[in-house]
Amino acid sequence: MYLAKVIGVVVSTHKEETLRGEKILLVQPIDTNEDPTGNSQVVIDTVGAGAGEMVLVATGSSARQVFQNPQAPIDAAIVGIVDYVEVTG
Amino acid sequence: MYLAKVIGVVVSTHKEETLRGEKILLVQPIDTNEDPTGNSQVVIDTVGAGAGEMVLVATGSSARQVFQNPQAPIDAAIVGIVDYVEVTG
Amino acid sequence: MYLAKVIGVVVSTHKEETLRGEKILLVQPIDTNEDPTGNSQVVIDTVGAGAGEMVLVATGSSARQVFQNPQAPIDAAIVGIVDYVEVTG
Amino acid sequence: MYLAKVIGVVVSTHKEETLRGEKILLVQPIDTNEDPTGNSQVVIDTVGAGAGEMVLVATGSSARQVFQNPQAPIDAAIVGIVDYVEVTG
Amino acid sequence: MYLAKVIGVVVSTHKEETLRGEKILLVQPIDTNEDPTGNSQVVIDTVGAGAGEMVLVATGSSARQVFQNPQAPIDAAIVGIVDYVEVTG
Repeated sequence: MYLAKVIGVVVSTHKEETLRGEKILLVQPIDTNEDPTGNSQVVIDTVGAGAGEMVLVATGSSARQVFQNPQAPIDAAIVGIVDYVEVTG
Repeated sequence: MYLAKVIGVVVSTHKEETLRGEKILLVQPIDTNEDPTGNSQVVIDTVGAGAGEMVLVATGSSARQVFQNPQAPIDAAIVGIVDYVEVTG
Repeated sequence: MYLAKVIGVVVSTHKEETLRGEKILLVQPIDTNEDPTGNSQVVIDTVGAGAGEMVLVATGSSARQVFQNPQAPIDAAIVGIVDYVEVTG
Repeated sequence: MYLAKVIGVVVSTHKEETLRGEKILLVQPIDTNEDPTGNSQVVIDTVGAGAGEMVLVATGSSARQVFQNPQAPIDAAIVGIVDYVEVTG
Repeated sequence: MYLAKVIGVVVSTHKEETLRGEKILLVQPIDTNEDPTGNSQVVIDTVGAGAGEMVLVATGSSARQVFQNPQAPIDAAIVGIVDYVEVTG
């Protein structure tokens, strides 16, 4: 899982049947200073995240476990909105 | 999932049985400015994408869920044609 | 699997139902000299690891096998506290 | 999936039981100009590929679907011999 | 799968129940010239590999197929001892 910030929306009217109704967002992975790390990613939202919010993204087969249809071709999902990160070490 | 542009076709007559009839495309991952990021990838098309179109690619075991034969050795699939990306953040 | 050091906590009150009660930690991957390698990662703790401890992290679908609910969207988990690493080669 | 060229053979007499009889090849990932990209990888052949041939490699859990024993520890497989790649975009 | 050299042992007394009794090794990925590539990795041994030996490592869900308990959180395993690599291309 990684930290990211919601930076946009992907609009796709012609898509795989099992993705209909899913909210497709663009996120920017960030580090603990909220600086961008690597390229933006496309993810499906499961928690109602909004633009600019810091979120937690799960990837791979783990990401699609929480959808009504676990056979949807989803490999990345927002699974939490982050209140804050406490760096201690 | 990631954004990509369809840039070619891979022709393979001698291939694994379960891949027969699948359209094998070459895509270039892109960022939100449509600039290339990283190497081109080989993916299977599920939505009828054409050359030059911006698409959404799913990877890993998630990619093969949507095929008639989920035991096909497919680890990347085009699952949507992207109308546009709205960057808000 | 990789070696990492626990460097923080991620607080998320609004998250996917199956993640409730899980301890979400921030870890820094390290090499055998305990120097950082790459970006920090978000993981779920299964062994009661504390701040500053060296731990072993498992990733992907393997990471979620050990949770009560294997359908939780978890793609990285601390599966051991490392006493020491003996480099011989 | 990615394009690669077969560049060698890995000989291992002492190996996991389920890998007995499998042909273990070394491949070099390549781009559309057939230039090398990244490190060589070890893959299992399913289509009778020979040295120097351009092939299509599938990875992850998808790679092991096509083997008689889908519980073999195989995370990369040659699933097609590439006749040619047509770059259009 | 990738080639690696066994370079150490990871000692962890407090770990996930399903890992008890497993030999946890540290390996250095190498190229065909036996030069190191990237960071060291932590893997579980299935074939009795020793320090300094060249081995074959499988990753992801494929890695845990060969263990008595396929629900163990193992994402990388040594599945063969390499006699030699013959580079032909």
